[in-house]
Amino acid sequence: MATLVEITDPADPRLADYRDLRDVELRKHLEAEHGLFLAEGEKVVRRAVAAGFPPRSFLMAPRWLDGLADELAASDVPCYVVSEALAEEVTGFHVHRGALASLERTPLPPVESVLASARSILVLEDIVDHTNVGAIFRSGAALGFDAVLLAPRCADPLYRRSIKVSMGAVFTTPWTRLPDWHDALPSLSRAGFTTVALTLAEDAVPVEDAVAGIDRVALVLGSEGHGLSPRWEQSADRRAIIPMRAGIDSLNVAAATAVACYVTARR
Amino acid sequence: MATLVEITDPADPRLADYRDLRDVELRKHLEAEHGLFLAEGEKVVRRAVAAGFPPRSFLMAPRWLDGLADELAASDVPCYVVSEALAEEVTGFHVHRGALASLERTPLPPVESVLASARSILVLEDIVDHTNVGAIFRSGAALGFDAVLLAPRCADPLYRRSIKVSMGAVFTTPWTRLPDWHDALPSLSRAGFTTVALTLAEDAVPVEDAVAGIDRVALVLGSEGHGLSPRWEQSADRRAIIPMRAGIDSLNVAAATAVACYVTARR
Repeated sequence: MATLVEITDPADPRLADYRDLRDVELRKHLEAEHGLFLAEGEKVVRRAVAAGFPPRSFLMAPRWLDGLADELAASDVPCYVVSEALAEEVTGFHVHRGALASLERTPLPPVESVLASARSILVLEDIVDHTNVGAIFRSGAALGFDAVLLAPRCADPLYRRSIKVSMGAVFTTPWTRLPDWHDALPSLSRAGFTTVALTLAEDAVPVEDAVAGIDRVALVLGSEGHGLSPRWEQSADRRAIIPMRAGIDSLNVAAATAVACYVTARR
Repeated sequence: MATLVEITDPADPRLADYRDLRDVELRKHLEAEHGLFLAEGEKVVRRAVAAGFPPRSFLMAPRWLDGLADELAASDVPCYVVSEALAEEVTGFHVHRGALASLERTPLPPVESVLASARSILVLEDIVDHTNVGAIFRSGAALGFDAVLLAPRCADPLYRRSIKVSMGAVFTTPWTRLPDWHDALPSLSRAGFTTVALTLAEDAVPVEDAVAGIDRVALVLGSEGHGLSPRWEQSADRRAIIPMRAGIDSLNVAAATAVACYVTARR
C-alpha cells in the first residue's frame, strides 16, 4: 500500500520531481539526471505502470485517490496528497486530469531486440517537437507498425507531452535510440530492412510505388524544419514522396507519417 | 506608408488588439467583438495581407521593421514599435517570430459560393482544438481539397494557433460556416455531394471503398473526444473507417484526416 503523505508547503523538497512541468528545458535536465519521467492523468498513469515502469511517487488532490485506489494498493511508494491550488503552484499549470506520477525510466533495449520480430518500423531522425513524436507513435501503433528507432537527437518519447499525445503508445510500442547516427540506415539495410526515406528530393518516387513489394520496411522521417540530413537522405535504399498539390507547403511531419504508414501497411 | 508609433507604456490603450494572446477565452471574446484576428510572424502576416484581409495595425520590435518594409510602405495604418520586453509583457509570450499584425475579419461567403467550383470538400463538425483545425486545413490544401465547411460550433480557423499550424492555408482555402447544423449534410447531398462520414460506427466500410467512384465528395469529420453527433453520423450518405490494428485507440483526428484526404484524392 502506498503511504499517503499530506503536503501543504509548496517548497517541500519531496515535491522536486513535479516542479515546473511547463519549463521544457528545465524538465529535460531534471528528468535525464534523475532518470525519471512524469505521467499525467489516471489512464496514462495506469498504462505506464502496466508497461513495467516502477513508480517513484504519486501526487494528487484528495478527490482523485479513489480512482487510482487499486494502483495505490499495489504500490509501496509515497502518494503526496495536495490541494489543487498547491498542485498548480508546484507544477505551473492546472492539473485538470487529476493524478500525476513520477516513474523510473528503464534501460533502453538494444536495437537488435527491438528489430527481432518487427516487419514495419519507423525511424525518426531529428524530430524536435514532442507533440509530433507523440503523434507519430500513435499513428504508427494504430496503422500496424511494430517498432520505432530514434536518432541520437530526436525528442524524448517519455516527455510528458509526447506521452499524452501518443495516448500511451510510447509505452506499448518497442523503441530505442540508435547508437550510431552516421551508419544507422546502412546498418538497417544489412539487418534485412529496406529503408525508405520520406523526402522532397528530386529523385523521390510516390510512396505507394516506393514501398510496393517490400517485406521488411523501415520508413525514415526527418526534422520538422529542414527534413532529413543529406547523409540519411542519401544512405536510404529508396526516396519517397507523398504527391501534393503544386505550390503548397509540404504536409506536417505527423500528417505525412500517418499517410505513409497507411500506404505502407497496404504494401 | 504606415505611421511608425513608438510605444513605451505597456498600458497604452492602442495596444488593446495585442493583449494576452495566450488567454484563449479572453481572445475569443475580444476578437469576435471587434471583428479582428492576429497574424504572427513575417511570412504569415504577408499571407494574410495578400489574401485581402485589411490590416488594422502592426506591432513589432525595431529589428523586424526592415523585413516587412514593403508591407508597411503599402499600408496606411499605424505600426507600433515596441521593445521585445514590452511586446512580451503585452502579449503574454515571447514573440520570437517578430512581427505581429491585427487584421479585420471579412464577411464569410455564402455556402453556395464556396461550393461552386469545388469537387472535394471537408466538413468539420465540432473540432474544438485550434491545432487540429489548422492541421486539417494544411493537409486538405496539400492533398487537393478545394474548400472547408464548418459547423456552427467548430473552433475558429482565424485563431492565431489555427493560422500558424495551417501555414496560412486558412487564408487560401475557401471556407465558411454552415448556417444550419441539423440539415447540413442532407443539404450537401441535394447540392450534388456524396457525404462520407469518418466514424467508428458498426456499419462503416473502409474509406477506400467508401469513396470509390464518387465525383463530388464531402468528407465529414467529428469532434476529438466523442466523434460525430448521431444526427450527422446518420444523415451522411456513407460511413467510412480507416482500418486500424485491433485494441488501439483511434487515430488523432488530424492524422485520420490526412489519411482520408490522401485516399479520397486518389478515388
